[in-house]
Amino acid sequence: MVSTHTHEISTAGQGDAHDLTAIVAKAVAGSNLTTGVATVFVVGSTAGVTTLEFESGVVQDLDRALQRLAPREGDYQHHLRWGDDNGSSHVRAALVGPSVTVPFVGTKLMLGTWQQIVLVEFDTQPRRRQIVIQLLGE
Amino acid sequence: MVSTHTHEISTAGQGDAHDLTAIVAKAVAGSNLTTGVATVFVVGSTAGVTTLEFESGVVQDLDRALQRLAPREGDYQHHLRWGDDNGSSHVRAALVGPSVTVPFVGTKLMLGTWQQIVLVEFDTQPRRRQIVIQLLGE
Amino acid sequence: MVSTHTHEISTAGQGDAHDLTAIVAKAVAGSNLTTGVATVFVVGSTAGVTTLEFESGVVQDLDRALQRLAPREGDYQHHLRWGDDNGSSHVRAALVGPSVTVPFVGTKLMLGTWQQIVLVEFDTQPRRRQIVIQLLGE
Repeated sequence: MVSTHTHEISTAGQGDAHDLTAIVAKAVAGSNLTTGVATVFVVGSTAGVTTLEFESGVVQDLDRALQRLAPREGDYQHHLRWGDDNGSSHVRAALVGPSVTVPFVGTKLMLGTWQQIVLVEFDTQPRRRQIVIQLLGE
Repeated sequence: MVSTHTHEISTAGQGDAHDLTAIVAKAVAGSNLTTGVATVFVVGSTAGVTTLEFESGVVQDLDRALQRLAPREGDYQHHLRWGDDNGSSHVRAALVGPSVTVPFVGTKLMLGTWQQIVLVEFDTQPRRRQIVIQLLGE
Repeated sequence: MVSTHTHEISTAGQGDAHDLTAIVAKAVAGSNLTTGVATVFVVGSTAGVTTLEFESGVVQDLDRALQRLAPREGDYQHHLRWGDDNGSSHVRAALVGPSVTVPFVGTKLMLGTWQQIVLVEFDTQPRRRQIVIQLLGE
């Protein structure tokens, strides 16, 4: 009924993105569940998980839009309080969100052809990220 | 324990929105589940699902804010690479996200009076959208 | 398999934020579930739930970014139609989303050390908010 999978990924810092689709599909295939939902969650407050067409143009376009909304070199209260430089990372992560929930049917993730499950790194430093894939179903 | 429903909707292109609440409520009523969660997921990388007050003013206000964040006629790497014109659609979809998960209790969706489950089309063309409603519960 | 918890919180209006982590952790501890997912959902269309580092700097930084995206004193169709003053609230809530789904394993929420589950109020008035925590698992 529940099947838990964890995965670690090294990222290159703000704007880096990783396609998690194959990892999630493998988790579904390796469980004894055929129908349900996969919740893909990144541990930490400076990264996000969403779906997008995983090609480098879209990844850059998303980064540029987020740069307009929360500029990396902007003024942040978080910097003043903690001496950090990743205020932009926190804002971006809160907006994109830490998780996405994707249905699967007959062991197949119900994604579009050009729709991938993607980890987006927002932190200003390279990070080692822990991904939790929680499968619920039958 | 799991109940899967799919639904197709034709959209009119960027800025169009459709209230899915009645469809989701009907899926819950037609299942043998009374308590759980409904994950409402749109297949594809240029549309989103969220909750909002479904009235045309809010729908337009959301479109205008997204137009400031990711202008339809902006420059996108996705256009250069693929000859597409929907870079703004991809950025908007990645931010809003493809799904929302709504609890239900006693077969009733736990939504506010002015809170509807809404499909928002971001693509620059009319599209035929597939919605997957995955119910989990007991 | 399913465990439902509801909680009410009074907010101070736009930009106010409340850490829900302890409430969600307590719901998990008080259920007979050890592994699964917690869906944390706010009822209403002018508030959001996400994860962030819950410190006042980040909360202010998020508010300022959303103020740039959807200014409180901006022009909104929602105002013209309904005489309301909370068009910015609706736009912000649709973008952040009403819920987050967090995995738990061994009764422990899989959050980062500086990652909290947070209710963000977007409405222009103080509100009494209902939070639904729906736990699914085994």
